[in-house]
Amino acid sequence: MSFELKTHLEEIISLTDQEFEHIAAHFKPKTLKKHQYLIQEDEFVNHIYFVVKGLLKATFTDANGKAYIIQFAMENWWLSDFRAFYGHVKSITNISCLENSELLSISKDDLDQLCRESHKMEHFFRIKNSLGYVALQQRILSLLTTSPKERFEQLAQQYPQLMQRVSKTIIAAYLGISRETLSRLSAKV
Amino acid sequence: MSFELKTHLEEIISLTDQEFEHIAAHFKPKTLKKHQYLIQEDEFVNHIYFVVKGLLKATFTDANGKAYIIQFAMENWWLSDFRAFYGHVKSITNISCLENSELLSISKDDLDQLCRESHKMEHFFRIKNSLGYVALQQRILSLLTTSPKERFEQLAQQYPQLMQRVSKTIIAAYLGISRETLSRLSAKV
Repeated sequence: MSFELKTHLEEIISLTDQEFEHIAAHFKPKTLKKHQYLIQEDEFVNHIYFVVKGLLKATFTDANGKAYIIQFAMENWWLSDFRAFYGHVKSITNISCLENSELLSISKDDLDQLCRESHKMEHFFRIKNSLGYVALQQRILSLLTTSPKERFEQLAQQYPQLMQRVSKTIIAAYLGISRETLSRLSAKV
Repeated sequence: MSFELKTHLEEIISLTDQEFEHIAAHFKPKTLKKHQYLIQEDEFVNHIYFVVKGLLKATFTDANGKAYIIQFAMENWWLSDFRAFYGHVKSITNISCLENSELLSISKDDLDQLCRESHKMEHFFRIKNSLGYVALQQRILSLLTTSPKERFEQLAQQYPQLMQRVSKTIIAAYLGISRETLSRLSAKV
């Protein structure tokens, strides 16, 4: 089904073709065009998504209408409103496409069943979740201790691809700085 | 061995006495006094810890010597420098006790072995890691979108116990505000 998913899973677990076919049968392809929404605020969220191709952003809009970009997702990333997905509550984020995107979706019931049936997949998601936890801890540390300039440099170093694919306005919204401040910073790098 | 650990595991998985004995055999008790260090900066980290009793803080000190509190941990929380633990790199945090503390430790090898032997434990940590991920996402959202005043109110509402057990200086360092600003905020609540 998806060569990309198999390669991605095999970074953590080894699978026979038969095992992968069983896993892949739990996923459904989903295609979205640039600007289309994957998840909208105030909806219940019953799926997580693996990005085969494309680029998406998750935003939160506060009571005053100010929008914050809380996450990007591109090839080989997992994406959802995880708070809504795991907590059975409504989404507080909007997730939309910055490029045409190809995703694979799995429902909560299918994910739970797959992990029950396959110890390997339970292991895969345990490790994946722990790596995600560490990445978020690093982001918190960065938000607490670094200046916007340092955050911009970290982002450029960690995800050089992202800087090519996303507009400066979007990068500025992610860093929590104005478009003008970002132009000043990026001129210096 | 530990009634607290059994109760905690059984929030997510069901265990026979025999299964729990097998699990508990992988953990070792560790007792620390107030002010003692559990993990120090620049060490490799080979254990994660379950807090049976007590209160700890994880701090990060920047190049200028300014210390940031990045996390607290109290009863029923899991704690480590997870970046160092999972990534086989040296710790960048100091973790120390704010109260006398009783912990249970498990090594990386024992954790991996336990999860290999017990699908239930692999499931427990998958779910636990996903809940941790969601909690950190909420903290990032809070850091991006709320004022120190709102963060103080959220903390007081979410962890009223913590406010009783920790000095105002420590709370201020966690919120990233001065001790004086905190006094002004807490007088109003």
